[in-house]
Amino acid sequence: MHTADAQFMQMAVDLALQGMRRNEGGPFGAVVVRDGAVIGRGNNRVISTHDPTAHAEILAIREACEHISNFQLEDCVMYSSCEPCPMCLGAVYWARLSKVFFGCTKLDAAHIGFDDEWIYRELPLPIRERSVPMESISRDIALRAFAEWEEKRDKTRY
Amino acid sequence: MHTADAQFMQMAVDLALQGMRRNEGGPFGAVVVRDGAVIGRGNNRVISTHDPTAHAEILAIREACEHISNFQLEDCVMYSSCEPCPMCLGAVYWARLSKVFFGCTKLDAAHIGFDDEWIYRELPLPIRERSVPMESISRDIALRAFAEWEEKRDKTRY
Repeated sequence: MHTADAQFMQMAVDLALQGMRRNEGGPFGAVVVRDGAVIGRGNNRVISTHDPTAHAEILAIREACEHISNFQLEDCVMYSSCEPCPMCLGAVYWARLSKVFFGCTKLDAAHIGFDDEWIYRELPLPIRERSVPMESISRDIALRAFAEWEEKRDKTRY
Repeated sequence: MHTADAQFMQMAVDLALQGMRRNEGGPFGAVVVRDGAVIGRGNNRVISTHDPTAHAEILAIREACEHISNFQLEDCVMYSSCEPCPMCLGAVYWARLSKVFFGCTKLDAAHIGFDDEWIYRELPLPIRERSVPMESISRDIALRAFAEWEEKRDKTRY
């Protein structure tokens, strides 16, 4: 482990501590780094913002993207104080981050009451076996939007 | 299928169409409904906001939570014009939505260039086998934030 990696992880942990002390949410922090500079910061704000998606990693990714005006973070590395949940991991992939360092593991998180293992178990299941009912309706109508996208000339592919 | 379900799905599709025509992002829309009323709306805005997390479902969840000042949507149903990606599915679980209706399937989405199957494949993999490198460092330091959370007296458990 490089010294710089430890320093960025310390920043992520500090964000976690500051956020929980302000009662913004759980003890989770994250930073996004490019070329040795922090371009995005986040700490869990689920409580203070009433936003279940306001995880540290999501907020750090959003801030980093805003900073560079790009929805991809291809040359960037994330330091998160805890192993990302499935939602945040999905965001990591969409953002094309090149690497993720994390401090605590998801088992550590489960031990203090933040268990995302059930979500990890649910995602690979066939739709009918998931605990939240999911059902396709009006597919023919929804497909019309896709058809219009296909024919759209000025679209940005991503 | 009830008439109301078809109407809410039509709203989600309309949001998808409006957003793509405004070049905000891909052809995806979603609404969150409680007691027969729409309390959250979203369409993909990845392009216009430079935000890779600005998927229709995430935005609809955020708006719905803001509307009721609660980070959980237990009695709410989502109508999404397309089957949610793993990130959005994670958000669905964290938000405790009671049901998800979707229009197009993820295969339909893949056919027009929006393939999230690779993310579905990655998430269940052991960390070492994932295509994005992930590594735990400084766990001892990160655990200190968790220990402080454990001892915190005025915390909101969630």
